[in-house]
Amino acid sequence: MGRRVAIVGTGHSKFGVRNDVNIPELAYEAIRQALDEAGIEKKDIDLVVTGYVGGWSSEGLAPVVVMEYAGLTGKPAYRIEAACATGSAAIKTAHDAVAAGEADIALVVGVEKMNESPTPTVVEFIGRAGNYFWEFENFGLTFPGYYALYATAYMQKYGATEEDLCKVAVKNHYYASFNPKAQFPRQITLEQCLKSRYIAWPLKLFDCSPITDGAAAVVLASEEIAEKLTDSPVWIEAIGVSSGTSNLSRRPYFTNLPAAKIAAQAAYKKAGIDPENPVKYLDLAEVHDCFTIAEIMAYEDLGFAKPGEGYKLIREEQTYIGGVIPVNLSGGLKAKGHPLAATGISMAVDLTRQLQGRVEKGRQAEIKHGRALAHNIGGTGHYAYVTIYSLSKPRSA
Amino acid sequence: MGRRVAIVGTGHSKFGVRNDVNIPELAYEAIRQALDEAGIEKKDIDLVVTGYVGGWSSEGLAPVVVMEYAGLTGKPAYRIEAACATGSAAIKTAHDAVAAGEADIALVVGVEKMNESPTPTVVEFIGRAGNYFWEFENFGLTFPGYYALYATAYMQKYGATEEDLCKVAVKNHYYASFNPKAQFPRQITLEQCLKSRYIAWPLKLFDCSPITDGAAAVVLASEEIAEKLTDSPVWIEAIGVSSGTSNLSRRPYFTNLPAAKIAAQAAYKKAGIDPENPVKYLDLAEVHDCFTIAEIMAYEDLGFAKPGEGYKLIREEQTYIGGVIPVNLSGGLKAKGHPLAATGISMAVDLTRQLQGRVEKGRQAEIKHGRALAHNIGGTGHYAYVTIYSLSKPRSA
Repeated sequence: MGRRVAIVGTGHSKFGVRNDVNIPELAYEAIRQALDEAGIEKKDIDLVVTGYVGGWSSEGLAPVVVMEYAGLTGKPAYRIEAACATGSAAIKTAHDAVAAGEADIALVVGVEKMNESPTPTVVEFIGRAGNYFWEFENFGLTFPGYYALYATAYMQKYGATEEDLCKVAVKNHYYASFNPKAQFPRQITLEQCLKSRYIAWPLKLFDCSPITDGAAAVVLASEEIAEKLTDSPVWIEAIGVSSGTSNLSRRPYFTNLPAAKIAAQAAYKKAGIDPENPVKYLDLAEVHDCFTIAEIMAYEDLGFAKPGEGYKLIREEQTYIGGVIPVNLSGGLKAKGHPLAATGISMAVDLTRQLQGRVEKGRQAEIKHGRALAHNIGGTGHYAYVTIYSLSKPRSA
Repeated sequence: MGRRVAIVGTGHSKFGVRNDVNIPELAYEAIRQALDEAGIEKKDIDLVVTGYVGGWSSEGLAPVVVMEYAGLTGKPAYRIEAACATGSAAIKTAHDAVAAGEADIALVVGVEKMNESPTPTVVEFIGRAGNYFWEFENFGLTFPGYYALYATAYMQKYGATEEDLCKVAVKNHYYASFNPKAQFPRQITLEQCLKSRYIAWPLKLFDCSPITDGAAAVVLASEEIAEKLTDSPVWIEAIGVSSGTSNLSRRPYFTNLPAAKIAAQAAYKKAGIDPENPVKYLDLAEVHDCFTIAEIMAYEDLGFAKPGEGYKLIREEQTYIGGVIPVNLSGGLKAKGHPLAATGISMAVDLTRQLQGRVEKGRQAEIKHGRALAHNIGGTGHYAYVTIYSLSKPRSA
């Protein structure tokens, strides 16, 4: 019903501890690159969607100062937030605006400077993004604790080991070593991970994604304009979205995320992908590995493995290039870094470049189907976004 | 290009100091009513957009707990924020999703419980929504101070008086006296306003909107579904959006809001309204009277009066029922209250009911053109949303 929408430009800042820049400067690293890639000028932009979770900085209206620094003041604008899935939600609303004909070209940018907060504060702030009243205030749960609950439930039920978890970290650090934008562009050994200190048993330091400053941006355009701007648009083929209870005590199980399953099914249905065998349709995926256990659960929620068999995929190294489906060739949240609102957009940036065959040697997937998947989770499964990007023009918009 | 979109149900909580409810309960007052009016069940909803500025409460993910309490867990969802224009921005993104065919029925809800913060904190928090670094941190500007700058510039340039400002408050309290949902459903006298204490000269207590808890909701539907659900859909005919610099020092003038003018022009163009004479096309308007001076500036930015002549409209009582164009028949932010994210949605609720001829006696406008306008500002003109609601089906979507 709506118009087809494509990514026509991508931008990505260096992720890491970025005390060298303020928020608008950091965002502009990504914005400038995305505009240059798209070959457009600021005047061509009809809508600016800013993803920003914030809370780490004193700046009340970060999107406004970002737009001002980038010379975009005056454009239609708003801020999107869906916890750690903010970036994908921002892409969704911009997609909808272009599909509806409310904008021809939209800029989507996600930025966080999380290291502006002292470490205890940032951990507390993220902890509030579960169920605040019962689980944070009364039980003292923070995010490593939440995902440790998932990990223990999963290990107990299916027999996965701490070594299986660490193998996810080893893979993601391996691919990050080829990605100069990653916060930790270096390999780690299995032993390093296994010997790292416990944060929340069974999760160790190397099972956890870091506190990251970073920005990512994409330019979206309608079919007509996309085909004028580029010979290789990457189409947004389907966006599946769902949400989950804020109370972990109300989840039916702790070994998977119900919202992610629903979002994946919705995206597969729209894209015409067989949910029983999605790996036959996809060249690669970026999944939300905020903790190593989360990547293993994602394999199952997305149908890459049967329930209870996700850990075998990493044990058998099937999510490396050459395996059943390569996952997190960017380094993932784990090693590339996780600046909350930038993460979903960073996935879109990296998958676009992967599909176009232009990422760094060593981490470029083989592109056969021309399709890639982004899996982006907010909270502990409070929001789930699954987006399918494609080199082929979707049958319907 | 996109599909036509209509409001098919509206809901509105009592505005005020709502220590009797928590955030999800407050939101549900509006949600329940909107679903009942639309005659739909929760299963019919394809998308939930929550407007929430927050910062007053410890709850990290308020939209998630709102959805859970309302039994909407699992639905596609995200949060929108555009400062005090959040409600209108939420309506825009839901509109775009329905217009694009990504959703058939969308629920839009805005909620704030601002009185959870102690008063100095809430004033500081709102103060950060200007230019934080220069104007709040270095100059100590808070929102009454910002709008006092506008008021002094306007009075000096055009000869408006403190009495003109107070006349806005008297009108809005007059209409609030007929609105049982208003925070202050009672009349005030001109003398009361003029004798109230200064908050930031020339603005006195009665020139300022209050700190409000409240919620409002609308159900949007595609043309096909809207016409099945109701005989009197209210169509979203046009949404004009713009943004402004975060630095007051970079504004070209202090007597009007450039972003509001751009947003109005965009909305008028789409709706086919002559920007030189919009009052000939509109039955009434709700405008963003966070301070009395803001309503007078809005008259001019919207083309209801020539530049420098807005204060004459209120001096001559032309924005009462029976005048050139009735404005803020709900009581406005000033007397109905201003729970930030709920405000733009509250405008949509009230204008829908006005167009359908079903608000309380004493404040019902005469409906001749079947069109109404909402003017919703974020920050001190950082965001501007102008939305046209219509009883007639728009020529194009």
